[in-house]
Amino acid sequence: MSLTRYLPILDWGSRYSRETAANDALAAVIVTIMLIPQSLAYAMLAGLPPEVGLYASIAPLALYAVFGTSRALAVGPVAVVSLMTAAAVGELAAQGTPEYWAAAIALALMSGLMLTAMGLLKLGFLANFLSHPVISGFITASGLIIAASQLKHVLGVPASGHNLLELLGSLAEHLPDANPVTAIIGVSAAAFLFWARKRLKPTLIARGVAPKLADALAKAGPVAAVAATTLATWALGLDGMGVAIVGAIPQGLPPLTLPSLDVELWGSLAVSALLISVVGFVESVSVAQTLAAKRRQRIAPDQELIGLGAANIGAAFTGGYPVTGGFARSVVNFDAGAETPAAGAFTAVGILLAALLLTPLLHFLPVATLAATIIVAVLSLVDLGALRRVWRWSRTDFAAQLATILLTLGAGVEAGIIAGVALSILLHLYRTSTPHVAVLGQVPGTEHFRNVARHEVATSPAVRMMRIDESLYFPNARFLEDCILDAVAADPALRHVVLVCTAVNAIDASALESLEAIDHRLRDGGVSLHLAEVKGPVMDRLERAGFTAHLSGEVFLTQFDAFRALAPAVAEAALAAPRRDTRRDPSRGCPPGPERPAAAAPAE
Amino acid sequence: MSLTRYLPILDWGSRYSRETAANDALAAVIVTIMLIPQSLAYAMLAGLPPEVGLYASIAPLALYAVFGTSRALAVGPVAVVSLMTAAAVGELAAQGTPEYWAAAIALALMSGLMLTAMGLLKLGFLANFLSHPVISGFITASGLIIAASQLKHVLGVPASGHNLLELLGSLAEHLPDANPVTAIIGVSAAAFLFWARKRLKPTLIARGVAPKLADALAKAGPVAAVAATTLATWALGLDGMGVAIVGAIPQGLPPLTLPSLDVELWGSLAVSALLISVVGFVESVSVAQTLAAKRRQRIAPDQELIGLGAANIGAAFTGGYPVTGGFARSVVNFDAGAETPAAGAFTAVGILLAALLLTPLLHFLPVATLAATIIVAVLSLVDLGALRRVWRWSRTDFAAQLATILLTLGAGVEAGIIAGVALSILLHLYRTSTPHVAVLGQVPGTEHFRNVARHEVATSPAVRMMRIDESLYFPNARFLEDCILDAVAADPALRHVVLVCTAVNAIDASALESLEAIDHRLRDGGVSLHLAEVKGPVMDRLERAGFTAHLSGEVFLTQFDAFRALAPAVAEAALAAPRRDTRRDPSRGCPPGPERPAAAAPAE
Repeated sequence: MSLTRYLPILDWGSRYSRETAANDALAAVIVTIMLIPQSLAYAMLAGLPPEVGLYASIAPLALYAVFGTSRALAVGPVAVVSLMTAAAVGELAAQGTPEYWAAAIALALMSGLMLTAMGLLKLGFLANFLSHPVISGFITASGLIIAASQLKHVLGVPASGHNLLELLGSLAEHLPDANPVTAIIGVSAAAFLFWARKRLKPTLIARGVAPKLADALAKAGPVAAVAATTLATWALGLDGMGVAIVGAIPQGLPPLTLPSLDVELWGSLAVSALLISVVGFVESVSVAQTLAAKRRQRIAPDQELIGLGAANIGAAFTGGYPVTGGFARSVVNFDAGAETPAAGAFTAVGILLAALLLTPLLHFLPVATLAATIIVAVLSLVDLGALRRVWRWSRTDFAAQLATILLTLGAGVEAGIIAGVALSILLHLYRTSTPHVAVLGQVPGTEHFRNVARHEVATSPAVRMMRIDESLYFPNARFLEDCILDAVAADPALRHVVLVCTAVNAIDASALESLEAIDHRLRDGGVSLHLAEVKGPVMDRLERAGFTAHLSGEVFLTQFDAFRALAPAVAEAALAAPRRDTRRDPSRGCPPGPERPAAAAPAE
Repeated sequence: MSLTRYLPILDWGSRYSRETAANDALAAVIVTIMLIPQSLAYAMLAGLPPEVGLYASIAPLALYAVFGTSRALAVGPVAVVSLMTAAAVGELAAQGTPEYWAAAIALALMSGLMLTAMGLLKLGFLANFLSHPVISGFITASGLIIAASQLKHVLGVPASGHNLLELLGSLAEHLPDANPVTAIIGVSAAAFLFWARKRLKPTLIARGVAPKLADALAKAGPVAAVAATTLATWALGLDGMGVAIVGAIPQGLPPLTLPSLDVELWGSLAVSALLISVVGFVESVSVAQTLAAKRRQRIAPDQELIGLGAANIGAAFTGGYPVTGGFARSVVNFDAGAETPAAGAFTAVGILLAALLLTPLLHFLPVATLAATIIVAVLSLVDLGALRRVWRWSRTDFAAQLATILLTLGAGVEAGIIAGVALSILLHLYRTSTPHVAVLGQVPGTEHFRNVARHEVATSPAVRMMRIDESLYFPNARFLEDCILDAVAADPALRHVVLVCTAVNAIDASALESLEAIDHRLRDGGVSLHLAEVKGPVMDRLERAGFTAHLSGEVFLTQFDAFRALAPAVAEAALAAPRRDTRRDPSRGCPPGPERPAAAAPAE
């Protein structure tokens, strides 16, 4: 049981049939064809030799097949993680040096160990701290940076920069030096790929090609671009005309590499490794969940961490670099009929064969084609419309998203994601630190209590019924004190404050002390504090802590009980009054009815 | 109106009478007598010359009287802030050097500017992030460190250390070198002060002294200790026998000092200044609130920030160091009848006279006496019982408190408080990331729905009613997905999921996307998602965002409406059934009744 949990292969492997194998193998062939140019291109994006992309697509896939729980996830190099790798390793070594590659390998090992540890310790919830707006803003900004960074390869100009503005400025400056042949290859490859992505499938279908085949052909666009430009470069000798080519790729098995255990290196990479692990996990698990739900399957997030961890450890020992589950290729894998993680293992075999046999064919592959592949792939990740959608939904979410985008573009990927996480946590704490508070009165003819600001309700000058719409905990403990003591200080006729606790799911030690302080201070001022509608478990705790024993007032089961006990004349008169629509401002569009509290608007 | 808000003196000053002045002056005399030894002792604790304590008790008090809102708060040097000053400044300069004093002055200016800025920007809520268990743990640990650090003065031994263990170890090592005369003075002063604090008042009352006078005499214990030991040292020439004395204290007005504006110095002090500001503010505002409530007055926390900010800026320009409102002396001020902040201004005059006239009398004051004063004062801050109380209330609060204490003792005040704040935020986020979820069923004979795990209720295999007891936001967005999709994957008969939103006060953008993802994935699996009892404002937003228009299911006003629509036969049969006690386990002590949800236990 426990072994199956940590080795999901034992579960699906025990029922593996020849038919399933055939389906998995077909999907693997399609994914392999798609993955070859992608892995070369993303390795280049990470600042690594192209063969490293192939190496990162062999052992990691096989290991994920053993430890992963998603039936359709296709693991390997992905754009955002490649960019983050380049940013992290670029701080420590120059691209093209052995130290650079060694640092990328160490990063993969660290990320693998962190993911595995998070999985074993069930720390998958850490990924929750990346809110959707932050992750979406981060991916959008990363896509823009990646696209800008690849433009130089497309145009054949030298350009560099640490942020988007510097990159674009440097590009503009060097534009006159562009190599025309490279630019023709790069721009036409990009144009073809955009066209293939948007229009090829409908065009083929319109010409009578079966939809399934049309879809497969459209997905093979990058392979066609690679083949065509490689052939053209070889046939026309374009490399002699200044077109940068991939060149000699070592032919053979991935090397066995022993990652560096240098303490200083690990220290400088630790934060990057953590961010890469969390971002990679969030990306991967979203894809895996989406695909699993389509077949009413489930993935186990904590075991996914172990699967991705194993994949990255595998990458570290076979000359690779950090990997995770990719969106586009997982969808292709799923659509092509992959039924089990074995499809990933078969893909690993396909890439292994490519590394053994195909690399000489890629000698004349223009770098501009790979750059075009990357640009087209990442621009589909850019979602500027999300800014508008998030703005309309919530200003605080928008602030976190905008900060993430601007800092990622202006100060780098790590600054961007850290700022986004910190800001979303701070804004959340700020919001819950000033919860909505309603003063309640009795709706005539009922035992219901509603907000006095929204309804014409019965109240008593000696009794204040207050409902706090939030659990009581340290960020709002002081607010609670201020709010209640202000109310009392402003009203000398007051004798009783009733705290209505319908929305209080928890009370922490800070809030308990605040309640005690409120009670003491109210008592000093001649006012009693009462509670009403306290939830069972919260009540148990208040009793255990001795709070209720020393309370100046009473604990009432319902709001009406409290009001009837403290202001009997008003309560009975209101109960006897005819029931009617009490809304003060019907134009607000909040339908009446006791089931829907009218005044529960969060402060935001 | 706005001017009165920022200058509260205009409010109370306009109604200031001769009678009030007499009361304020009396209180000021008593506080001055108490403050003289305290200010000398806390300056020593901060590593500064004793006269700096007097300087910090003049201008700051006068400025707080102009800008502060508390009628009884007595501002000046306090123990914890003095310790934090020593820790911050000790990193940058050696005690006794002009650089050390200059850094303390710069720290006061930075803290003053930060407090004022927080007040003007209404950032007082930042203080909320210091939860009660963290601040109480921090003060307890600080008290232990302060007491340990003063033992060397009491015993007349050299000892040093960066944390409690080192301090105690060093003390034990040097114990044989103790100066016996110093030890006699120090230990007997400490013993007398402990006795005076605990027993002097009842002893005096028992001997027929009026209670009010007895109280005043007991409070004057430190002054008596100072007078007696100073006299003894002078008369017996104890300073010639190795007893360290305060020595020459410059006589005169506080110097006008121009704080350093060195960028590097400010950079190294920034975090310390922020922590000192927040800790000082939290301490001060708690005292001020407690005292204000006793007279049914209110303080304005944001204006308090400005008041404390002005006091610290004043300290910086008159040779002082960071100050805040002190607990013991504010209580004395209040009990002595202070009616307005003018009492603080009168105290400032008293201390000014002391600085002008009294300092020669303090020449022979033994350092051991000041150390004994500090030890007795701070040990009253140590509250180890809080650990037990917090443990009984909540394990997460306890973890934050214990971490604060251990890190403050072992790694220093700043590490301790930062760890405490970070841990309490993380634990809160962790707790809300896995909210309580109840599966509901219909209570027979009613339209009420309760937790199936706690009650014998009517359910339908095709309909799952789930209630989430938390606002939906990014830390629990993924949990929500996991939880609902797991439930559906485990149950092939399921056709409808109803999300009961009674406890959902807010939905952020992450949770909205999760809801959309859940809806899409459920639809892919042939299941509809419905909502019930959505609060008005949340519903408005869901409609504006277009969520409800695309929802696979419906939005129901009540839980019963949903169940009756989706499982009409079960719902009608349950409604027609006789009403009865449905609790599965009555021993749990949770009283029945529709007003109190039985299953709202927080996960913690």
